[in-house]
Amino acid sequence: MPNTDAAEFELHPKLAADTHSVIDWPICRVLLMNDERFPWLILVPAMAGLRELHDIASPAREQLWAEVDHASRHLAEMTQADKMNVAALGNQVPQLHIHVIARFEDDTAWPNPVWGHGAAEPYADALPLIDQLRQTLK
Amino acid sequence: MPNTDAAEFELHPKLAADTHSVIDWPICRVLLMNDERFPWLILVPAMAGLRELHDIASPAREQLWAEVDHASRHLAEMTQADKMNVAALGNQVPQLHIHVIARFEDDTAWPNPVWGHGAAEPYADALPLIDQLRQTLK
Repeated sequence: MPNTDAAEFELHPKLAADTHSVIDWPICRVLLMNDERFPWLILVPAMAGLRELHDIASPAREQLWAEVDHASRHLAEMTQADKMNVAALGNQVPQLHIHVIARFEDDTAWPNPVWGHGAAEPYADALPLIDQLRQTLK
Repeated sequence: MPNTDAAEFELHPKLAADTHSVIDWPICRVLLMNDERFPWLILVPAMAGLRELHDIASPAREQLWAEVDHASRHLAEMTQADKMNVAALGNQVPQLHIHVIARFEDDTAWPNPVWGHGAAEPYADALPLIDQLRQTLK
């Protein structure tokens, strides 16, 4: 069993380096991937030692999926996305994290997944989008 | 709102063509992707008109994630996977479906995602694996 003590949680340095912090929810830290090609949130359950989705037992699991649902629905509405992609992969960063990505039929990777598709293009100024996300996701 | 009438549900022909049927659960049909490179389940909520994860409201959402959790945990144990990948993408097949894939550090796509990685290699005889999955997942 993982040690799910929130006090011992530390965000993985690769996730910290690649994202901006948006908001903290009861289970998840909500991050914005620093890649302006895709509106791309990453939700990280703030519990130490999680690696797999199935490491999270009920009732935290229900809260986690309520949060993913909330993020997906509101990011879809805000961006008028054609499709949402929701995924927990973790082949490269072992700390459990859930991607919530707004996809468009004219985005640069469509219809393929975004992972491994070219290099990230950092936002020149992410603050306006982060402010909008904080209003939308609060 | 989608029409979530189970009586009107029909499996998308592309999913039907690419998989073997394993078992039916209260929410999901559990399918085995016909690709022996990866132990790869696809869970399809048997409700008509679903496209996004956030189209499924509570309490069906809780049951869905209990089923995904069950599939992920038991496939991980059965295969001794190094990592599970769980994802709802749907850029190519619009009917909502959730991938649950056992990954290995020596599989052919590692550490990248499996989608778009070469061509599927169909099982010569999938029945032994399907029988094992039915025992494991029942």
